[in-house]
Amino acid sequence: MSLVRVHNFSISLDGFGTGEGQTLEAPFGHAGHRLMAWAFGTRTFRAMGLPGDTEASFGVDESFASQWAPGIGAEIMGRNKFSPHRGPHDDEWTGWWGDDPVFHTPVVVLTHHPRPVLEMEGGTTFHFVDADPATALAKARELAGDLDVRIGGGVSTVRQFLEADLIDHLHVVVVPIVLGRGERLWDGLEALEDRFDIESTPSPSGVTHLILSRRPRA
Amino acid sequence: MSLVRVHNFSISLDGFGTGEGQTLEAPFGHAGHRLMAWAFGTRTFRAMGLPGDTEASFGVDESFASQWAPGIGAEIMGRNKFSPHRGPHDDEWTGWWGDDPVFHTPVVVLTHHPRPVLEMEGGTTFHFVDADPATALAKARELAGDLDVRIGGGVSTVRQFLEADLIDHLHVVVVPIVLGRGERLWDGLEALEDRFDIESTPSPSGVTHLILSRRPRA
Repeated sequence: MSLVRVHNFSISLDGFGTGEGQTLEAPFGHAGHRLMAWAFGTRTFRAMGLPGDTEASFGVDESFASQWAPGIGAEIMGRNKFSPHRGPHDDEWTGWWGDDPVFHTPVVVLTHHPRPVLEMEGGTTFHFVDADPATALAKARELAGDLDVRIGGGVSTVRQFLEADLIDHLHVVVVPIVLGRGERLWDGLEALEDRFDIESTPSPSGVTHLILSRRPRA
Repeated sequence: MSLVRVHNFSISLDGFGTGEGQTLEAPFGHAGHRLMAWAFGTRTFRAMGLPGDTEASFGVDESFASQWAPGIGAEIMGRNKFSPHRGPHDDEWTGWWGDDPVFHTPVVVLTHHPRPVLEMEGGTTFHFVDADPATALAKARELAGDLDVRIGGGVSTVRQFLEADLIDHLHVVVVPIVLGRGERLWDGLEALEDRFDIESTPSPSGVTHLILSRRPRA
């Protein structure tokens, strides 16, 4: 069976995966770019067009970041990752990622509002699906062929898939900032450690990479 | 000026420094011993009489744990660290630590309920003080002579001293468990990283040691 994976999912020291007040200009709300700043120095994110002040490197951060794409056949994302809008779709909006989005695979967008399939350049297709996590995963697996499925976020999407025990590999990046408000990743997940082995690796950039690996199911 | 230090302060992945429901039998509530289990393998905690299944070692955990006592002239602790009772003191209660407590220094216990100084064996004296953090710190500094003052917890006590910007050195141990409920350390401390440098070191035991060092004050 293909795996369900989360990569490069950043949270603050106090557990927030996004700040308060998402807008078109501030996809992470008051967190600004701070949750993803560690990634700006990596080759993987530079290749996606992200800005950076320093030389891209092959260090710890890149080693983790680069796991994002290989072996992935489809992504599932929440509506709030796809768009700053709420309610019915604005059909002019085709995501934050330009004409040739970084995904290059089918992407299942979870939404209560129907919209036709959106074909982009470079192999990305957005499929708008109103479904619970297990049903959405079945759809994504169908689109992914034999490859793995990535849960792309945002926070509540990752949390729902964790609650439903559908995730095999979870890479969390703990950024040493205290956001104070926003959306928390770990809420409602008491005793998660009973299901996962947890490994911690600090980076010279200041972040700590956590790898949660689902223990074999009985 | 002597430093104000916090050592060996354990929190869960989701930021809880204690669980729900403190009782005489369960000082950390539903968290049980899980937040302090990393310390049971260290020489420092064995010397305090803590149990352990494995050989005490000189590894990463011990290196951090052993910083707890040297240079400390007094501790400040909250009422809930001293006792499971609430309201007026039960004068029969002399702490969780037996006749010869592990502190061997004066200890300022923050409480709204007066009680005479309690002299224990081995140099520990408990001073019951109804005061704000700055006033309690002045009292502890007086008792500590030229030595440093340790803030011993619990969670709300450490948080109050952080809010009042009175802490110079904060050692937090992140334990890879998700408690889900209890008392959170980071609440109300948005942008703490503006005041502290933060360093992260993982241990083979699975915990991650965070050192927060107060930047020089202007």
